[in-house]
Amino acid sequence: MRIRKAVITAASPSQRRLPLQNLIDRDGQERSVLGILLEEVVRARVEEICVVVCPGDAEHYALVTGDHAGRVRFVEQHEPRGYGHAIHCAREFTAGEPFLHLVSDHLYVNHTKASCATELIEVAELEDCSVSSVQATREGQLKQFGAVGGQRVAGRERLYKVDTVLEKPTPTEAEQRIVVPGLRSGHYLCFFGMHVLAPAVMTILEELLADPRTTTVSLSMALAELARRERFLALRMTQRRYDLGVRYGLLTAQLALGLSGRDRDEILSQMVELMALREMAAK
Amino acid sequence: MRIRKAVITAASPSQRRLPLQNLIDRDGQERSVLGILLEEVVRARVEEICVVVCPGDAEHYALVTGDHAGRVRFVEQHEPRGYGHAIHCAREFTAGEPFLHLVSDHLYVNHTKASCATELIEVAELEDCSVSSVQATREGQLKQFGAVGGQRVAGRERLYKVDTVLEKPTPTEAEQRIVVPGLRSGHYLCFFGMHVLAPAVMTILEELLADPRTTTVSLSMALAELARRERFLALRMTQRRYDLGVRYGLLTAQLALGLSGRDRDEILSQMVELMALREMAAK
Repeated sequence: MRIRKAVITAASPSQRRLPLQNLIDRDGQERSVLGILLEEVVRARVEEICVVVCPGDAEHYALVTGDHAGRVRFVEQHEPRGYGHAIHCAREFTAGEPFLHLVSDHLYVNHTKASCATELIEVAELEDCSVSSVQATREGQLKQFGAVGGQRVAGRERLYKVDTVLEKPTPTEAEQRIVVPGLRSGHYLCFFGMHVLAPAVMTILEELLADPRTTTVSLSMALAELARRERFLALRMTQRRYDLGVRYGLLTAQLALGLSGRDRDEILSQMVELMALREMAAK
Repeated sequence: MRIRKAVITAASPSQRRLPLQNLIDRDGQERSVLGILLEEVVRARVEEICVVVCPGDAEHYALVTGDHAGRVRFVEQHEPRGYGHAIHCAREFTAGEPFLHLVSDHLYVNHTKASCATELIEVAELEDCSVSSVQATREGQLKQFGAVGGQRVAGRERLYKVDTVLEKPTPTEAEQRIVVPGLRSGHYLCFFGMHVLAPAVMTILEELLADPRTTTVSLSMALAELARRERFLALRMTQRRYDLGVRYGLLTAQLALGLSGRDRDEILSQMVELMALREMAAK
């Protein structure tokens, strides 16, 4: 399969202003968070992007799409029915094609050369199935993430066939159900916020949302079902993901971008100068 | 005189998105840049604030005024007639009263205890005249700032009576006209972006704008005339000002806030962790 489309979700009311924040990317370009994500997606040869937003936000976001305005369309999520529902709002856009999906409140920083989106899409196209990016994550952080269990694909160091998906498991659940061979003890494969999703995911979301007993639908619910129905892989990323929604998330992401890019020396000297300033003031 | 009002200018088209950016202040609160400025102003006992904006921006800014929405009103600048004109747009708001003025693309960080706005207002109320905050600035940076010349007020270490105001002087002009006794050689008193302005400033701006030969009016033009007409002081600040509009301006300001506030240790450990990450990746 070939991945031509991407869906970015930005409809969480608590995080709707994050995509509007400005950062300087690894190349030294000032961009909005949304602009940095669009750049990553476009460099991975994606042609069309749908951003799912809160009602009324499209106009603000349209101002910060930078060079990629022509590739971007906006769709509103009108009911707060969860993350899975937000993705499902883009079903007319994806129109039966597989798509790259990423959240808008994280940045992905490659401290080496490989871009996350490019690497993930390459694997998905080659394997011809859904692939979620994952990261080995300490037990203590399980409560923030969806996590997967499965077996390593023979001959591939960072690729796993997923058999189980749990949303924010307890350490006990995780130990019973998703221990992955080859990881350090007390570490689990948690979602990294970027996925390539086959058309079956939209079908499953549709079914879950149609059930009158469910109010909200998470992506993990759909991916758990996906793992039962068809081949679904997880790729362990070596890059870093930065959650922009936590305290000092923007600062940490900016430092990570700055220190991994061409302006490293400039950033380091700023840091040293500021540290010295405080020491002087303290005297 | 008592300073009850403040005018914040945010109408420069190139910087209209800066006040919307989020930072975490010294107290560890996440706020917009505009919210941080409003907090500084309100803590200095200002009761009403007018923000001068580009047409159409009031709605976006109103979303980020935080706790102080009730004290804030917006006025649009409809013609690009300069910084002095932007201030003049608030004339109906100031209504003949003196006012605190600050720009929206700088943050003021006290690495010690004193808040810039509070200190400036105290001096202006005591001296009963206009007072501009200034900072000793190296010759090489003169091209970015307005600068003042004058004499030190007897018995006051950081207070000067202004006799000359020059907008972005060359080093030669500065050496001939605004050398200030007691500063290090090659240093001049440049504006710091915060002023208390007497009602005469609005009158002078009105006169300058009425002149059919002038297209744009800077604040320096008005302050040069003010120094000819009445007592006008400059207060040398010991705090730091951070220009958010320059490359890495937001990062530098966030680091300065973080390192001068209660989260200093958290910020330092983040910095060290990120530096280590790159060293590992480089191996």
